[in-house]
Amino acid sequence: MPRAIYDHVALIGLGLIGSSLCHAMRRGGLARRITGHARSEATRQTADRLRLCDAVFADPAEAVAGADLVILCTPVGRYGAIAEAIRPALKPGATLTDVGSVKGAVVRDVGLYVPDGVHFVPGHPIAGTEHSGPEAGFAELYDGRWCILTPLPGSDPDAVARLQRFWEGCGASVELMTPEHHDRVLAIVSHVPHLIAYNIVGTASDLEQVTQKEVIKFSASGFRDFTRIAASDPIMWRDIFLNNKDAVLEMLGRFVEDLTSLQRAIRWEDGDALLDLFTRTRAIRRGIIEAGQDTAAPDFGRPHGAGPAEKKKTA
Amino acid sequence: MPRAIYDHVALIGLGLIGSSLCHAMRRGGLARRITGHARSEATRQTADRLRLCDAVFADPAEAVAGADLVILCTPVGRYGAIAEAIRPALKPGATLTDVGSVKGAVVRDVGLYVPDGVHFVPGHPIAGTEHSGPEAGFAELYDGRWCILTPLPGSDPDAVARLQRFWEGCGASVELMTPEHHDRVLAIVSHVPHLIAYNIVGTASDLEQVTQKEVIKFSASGFRDFTRIAASDPIMWRDIFLNNKDAVLEMLGRFVEDLTSLQRAIRWEDGDALLDLFTRTRAIRRGIIEAGQDTAAPDFGRPHGAGPAEKKKTA
Repeated sequence: MPRAIYDHVALIGLGLIGSSLCHAMRRGGLARRITGHARSEATRQTADRLRLCDAVFADPAEAVAGADLVILCTPVGRYGAIAEAIRPALKPGATLTDVGSVKGAVVRDVGLYVPDGVHFVPGHPIAGTEHSGPEAGFAELYDGRWCILTPLPGSDPDAVARLQRFWEGCGASVELMTPEHHDRVLAIVSHVPHLIAYNIVGTASDLEQVTQKEVIKFSASGFRDFTRIAASDPIMWRDIFLNNKDAVLEMLGRFVEDLTSLQRAIRWEDGDALLDLFTRTRAIRRGIIEAGQDTAAPDFGRPHGAGPAEKKKTA
Repeated sequence: MPRAIYDHVALIGLGLIGSSLCHAMRRGGLARRITGHARSEATRQTADRLRLCDAVFADPAEAVAGADLVILCTPVGRYGAIAEAIRPALKPGATLTDVGSVKGAVVRDVGLYVPDGVHFVPGHPIAGTEHSGPEAGFAELYDGRWCILTPLPGSDPDAVARLQRFWEGCGASVELMTPEHHDRVLAIVSHVPHLIAYNIVGTASDLEQVTQKEVIKFSASGFRDFTRIAASDPIMWRDIFLNNKDAVLEMLGRFVEDLTSLQRAIRWEDGDALLDLFTRTRAIRRGIIEAGQDTAAPDFGRPHGAGPAEKKKTA
């Protein structure tokens, strides 16, 4: 077994992110002991059945007692209450981190409760699927993904470096930036895309001239990819929008401005303006393929023949 | 060899859609003779090298001479000129169809030039990838996909039924509807999603506070799926927006209305309104999985570990 990076890791929250961390830690031998907290009895039972942790607690303070690394893996909206609850139980010298998709609000909500002698290093692994819950986790979730750490001005460099080694042990590559910059980057690459995906799926389901059945049937023509994004965990995403309000509203404002100009180009049949944008956007896609962040296989290599024809065969 | 459905099929345009039809027709033995037209010398040479057709012509009229089925597979903006050029060469009793993503404008632009005795049955296979050109085609493109036919009030039922059998031979399932209804359905499931994908990729590439390098690096958090859509063929998409203007502007108006209300919910921190929408949109996703139009595999079953960690190993 490789040398553990932390003796004892405590996970607060055992959904997709927390349960994947359990699998990844075991795969890499990154911790000698894993404890966990889940609010719901059902999640605790599932965690026990899947043997995700060595011990699971209903009380978050019990879960963090003695831990060298504490990772908050609940929706961001619950962080403040949890930080307050675990404060007395945090071990001096421990590192406290999180996996939340916003960072400014986390510094604001959690920072207040961090005792002297505990290292607070906010983090955000850029990984996920549209599935949630303790059964959705898998060891490979972080492989080849980025994890952003946003150390504070007074963060202990050794604590940051150790947390970085931990995430690398989970398969991720680590990047450091300020909480403010993180929130701007994520607003454009993640939060606003999710918002417009949720929005168009909502618009489509409200139409009176086109039935929901037709929307579902012909979704492969573009809409389908939006529905995957719009199937993400609702509570997690509500909390993201409420906690990254300023950056999201700023990026959304730019998006709407650009969309209005496209709308005008269509109304006035300005084909050159459309062609210009549609050509420019291809370069970004090439950059993503070259950076290894996606596969170039047509249609993501989705199996062909799993649609209506498939059903025909069995009918 | 199965019985051919048409003796001679002519394809006007040999891009992704046309070349995939060549492969699918050969796989299914659907035609005894395949002729093709491509405007560019380079495409004609590639078609010859790949043996896509039995003969390829620079002049579309030569390609359609003697054909029982003629399929227009170029961008929709060129249909009018092509219809005029092939008109004198169309064989009496032949069927003329197309694969364009808009149908009202096709009826308007092509209908004018269809001689008496030729059956005009517009069509639209809901299939494609973000790749274009004669080398992008593959036989399985239409497997398990829908093909919509929009017969006109006077269309010959036998000609429609035969064309339906042809598409089923290519692996597709066929649905009939009016051109107007087709254009509304496609505006919401395809055209507006493409427009907003193009738009957000454009917005992201114009930011001054977040670099393009960062956008590419962290794209896996949602943005990536939009870039795939926004890498689709620019000319084809320009023509779609110019030719389905009314339905696109109508659906876009609804989208913007809904987005404005979401924007307001974020500004006023109305978490319940956000949660309500985000919960509702999950049901549509379930419908799509159940209808066999997508895989439930996390992240579309994309390989994990092909990102930065992969590069680290070789560094």
